[in-house]
Amino acid sequence: MSRYQSARLSSLSPYTPGEQPRDMKYIKLNTNESPFPPSEKAQKLAAEAAKKLQLYSDPTCRTLVDKLAEVYGVEPDEVIVTNGSDEVLDFAFQAFCDEDVPARFPDITYGFYPVFAARNGIPYETVALRDDFTIDIKQYFNTGKTIFIANPNAPTGIALTRDEIEQILISNPNNVVVIDEAYVDFGGESAVPLIKQYDNLLVTQTFSKSRSLAGGRLGFGIGNRELIADLHTIRYSTNPYNVNSMTAAAGYGVLCDEVYTQKNCRTIMDNREYTTAALRELGFTVLDSKANFVFATTPAMRGADLYAALKQNGILVRHFDNPRISDFVRISIGTREQMQTLVAVVEKLLTEV
Amino acid sequence: MSRYQSARLSSLSPYTPGEQPRDMKYIKLNTNESPFPPSEKAQKLAAEAAKKLQLYSDPTCRTLVDKLAEVYGVEPDEVIVTNGSDEVLDFAFQAFCDEDVPARFPDITYGFYPVFAARNGIPYETVALRDDFTIDIKQYFNTGKTIFIANPNAPTGIALTRDEIEQILISNPNNVVVIDEAYVDFGGESAVPLIKQYDNLLVTQTFSKSRSLAGGRLGFGIGNRELIADLHTIRYSTNPYNVNSMTAAAGYGVLCDEVYTQKNCRTIMDNREYTTAALRELGFTVLDSKANFVFATTPAMRGADLYAALKQNGILVRHFDNPRISDFVRISIGTREQMQTLVAVVEKLLTEV
Repeated sequence: MSRYQSARLSSLSPYTPGEQPRDMKYIKLNTNESPFPPSEKAQKLAAEAAKKLQLYSDPTCRTLVDKLAEVYGVEPDEVIVTNGSDEVLDFAFQAFCDEDVPARFPDITYGFYPVFAARNGIPYETVALRDDFTIDIKQYFNTGKTIFIANPNAPTGIALTRDEIEQILISNPNNVVVIDEAYVDFGGESAVPLIKQYDNLLVTQTFSKSRSLAGGRLGFGIGNRELIADLHTIRYSTNPYNVNSMTAAAGYGVLCDEVYTQKNCRTIMDNREYTTAALRELGFTVLDSKANFVFATTPAMRGADLYAALKQNGILVRHFDNPRISDFVRISIGTREQMQTLVAVVEKLLTEV
Repeated sequence: MSRYQSARLSSLSPYTPGEQPRDMKYIKLNTNESPFPPSEKAQKLAAEAAKKLQLYSDPTCRTLVDKLAEVYGVEPDEVIVTNGSDEVLDFAFQAFCDEDVPARFPDITYGFYPVFAARNGIPYETVALRDDFTIDIKQYFNTGKTIFIANPNAPTGIALTRDEIEQILISNPNNVVVIDEAYVDFGGESAVPLIKQYDNLLVTQTFSKSRSLAGGRLGFGIGNRELIADLHTIRYSTNPYNVNSMTAAAGYGVLCDEVYTQKNCRTIMDNREYTTAALRELGFTVLDSKANFVFATTPAMRGADLYAALKQNGILVRHFDNPRISDFVRISIGTREQMQTLVAVVEKLLTEV
C-alpha cells in the first residue's frame, strides 16, 4: 500500500482467484473451466477480428447482442454484454445498491459479492444457508434490500427452482433481485423467462463455463429494458468499449453453434453424475450439484489436507478457508478420463490415511 | 432510468464515445485510430490464443507484463495492464482520490476524467487552459490534489516537456500525478524515465493508437511499485481477469515488433505535418500537435457546420459541444491519401461558403 492510497480503500480485501501454478502440469479442476475447446466458428471469427484491431470495437456490440437476444427470446435492449460476468455484477451493485438500499446474499456464495460491495462503499448483510447448505428463500422475502443469489449457488452447486425464484421476485416488488446464473446450463432452471413479468429481475450469465470462453471474458445481463439502461449508464461511465472485438466475434460464433454447447453440457452432466456416485461410493458426502463442479467432503480427511494431497498427486481442486466449508473441496467437472483419474487418486489417498 | 436506480448515480452523465455510423462507408478520422493493421505477429498470436479460450486468462498477464517492463526499462512490478487505458485511469481515480483529496485537471482535456470522478463520488476541480490552449503548469504546483494531465493533451494535441512534468512532480510530493500518455508516441516526451525518482508519478498509456490495437482494448500503467500495488488492489476487487488471453497475446506480439510500430508513428507524424501545413495554407488555425490528430478552426465556418459538411462528404471528424472549443474540429491523422482527400474536400467546402 502506498502512502497515497485513498482512505476508503485501505481496508479492502480483494478477491482471490483460483491458483494458476506454473511449476508443473496439473489436471486442473479448480476454476470450473470447460475441458472442451471453444467452437471452431468462435475461433475462426476471433482470428478474423484480430486482423482489424486498429479499429475500435463497436461499443454497442450490436451483432453479438442481437444474436443473444435471438437465442434467449428477448429484445436487444433487454441485454447488456460485459467483460466477464464479474463486470455486470459489479455494475449491478453500483446501479441498484447504496447506503439506503444495502445488498443481501447468502453467507456461502460467490466470494466476489462482498468485495464488490466493499469497493463500492455499499453496506451488505449475509444470510446463513441452512445446515444442509440449501437457501431458505423465506429469508429473501420482503427485504427492502437488493438481493444477489447465485443459482445454482457456488461453491455448493445446489439450485433453486424457477418457482422459488419467482416467489422471491413477487415479495420484493420495490427491489432488484439479481440471479447470477453462471452455472445454469448444467441442469438448472433459468429465470430468463420471468423477465417479461418482473421488472425487478436481472439475470446474469457468462460464456466462461458452458461456452468454453473463460479466457475471452464475456458475460451478459438480461432484464427489463429500464434495468438494462441503468447498467448501460454505468458502462458508459466506466468503459464503453468494455468488450473487445475478438471476444465479441468469438461470442457470436459460439452462439451460432448451440448444438456443440449443448452436447458439451450433457457430457459434463454425465461426468458429474459419474463423479458424484463414485465419491459417494468412497464414503464422501457430495452435495446435489446442478453446476459443472461438485462440493464434497469425507470424514476421512480434512478439506485442506485433501486439497494438498490431490495437488501433490497432480490434481488441482479448490479449497476455501471459510470455517463453515473448510472440510469441503470443490471439484470442477472435466473429461471422463480426468474424473476417473481423480477418483482413482482419491481412492488411493483414502487407503493411505 | 428505472425506479430502482441508486440515488447517487441518478445525476451521472456518461461519456459519449465517437460515433460509429453504419449508414455508409466513411473516411473515419473521428476516433484517433491507426490507419495501419496490427502487426502480423500480434494477429497470429491472438488467433492461437483463440484456440484455448476454455481456460481462464492469466490474471497476472505475466508474459505481457514482463515484455512491457523490458521495452520500457522498468521492473514487472512497476507495470499494470488493463482493459484499455480507461480502466487504469478509472482505477487511479478510485485508488488516489477521495473526499479529502479531490482530483484536478484542465477544463479542456479527455472528457472521461469528470465522468470517472462523478461515478466514483470524487470531487474535482478544473483549471482553465490559457487562451492559446496551453497548460499553465504553475496551476498544478502545491495543489494537495491528485493531478490528471493528458500529455499530449486531447483534443488540443499540445504537449508539455518532461522538464515541465518534473516541476509538477517536485511541487506535489504528497500527491499522485497521473500523466495520461495515450498519444505520446507521436512526438511527445514520455515521463516514464522519471518513475525511478518520483514515487508520486503514474504514467498511463494505451495500445489503441500507435500500436493499432484499439479493438483489442489494452492499456497499462507504469509507476512506483507501491502505486502499482494499490492499482492491483482495485483490479483484484473489480475484475482480476480484466485482460483476456487474446488481447494479452496480441499485446505481446505488438511489442515484439517495435520497428513496425515506430515506422507507423513516423508516417503518422509526416502526415500530420502535411495536414497541418495544408490547412494553414487554407487559412485555418491549427494547434501544434504532438498527437495523431490535429485540432483546427477556420474563420470561414463554424465548427459544427464544418463537421456536418465533412460528414456529408463522407469524412467523419469529431466536434465537441463545449463552448470554448465549439469552433474547432478534431481530425485524426490517417494515411496520406486520406489526408489529401480531407484537404481537397475542405478546400471545396471553403469555396462554397
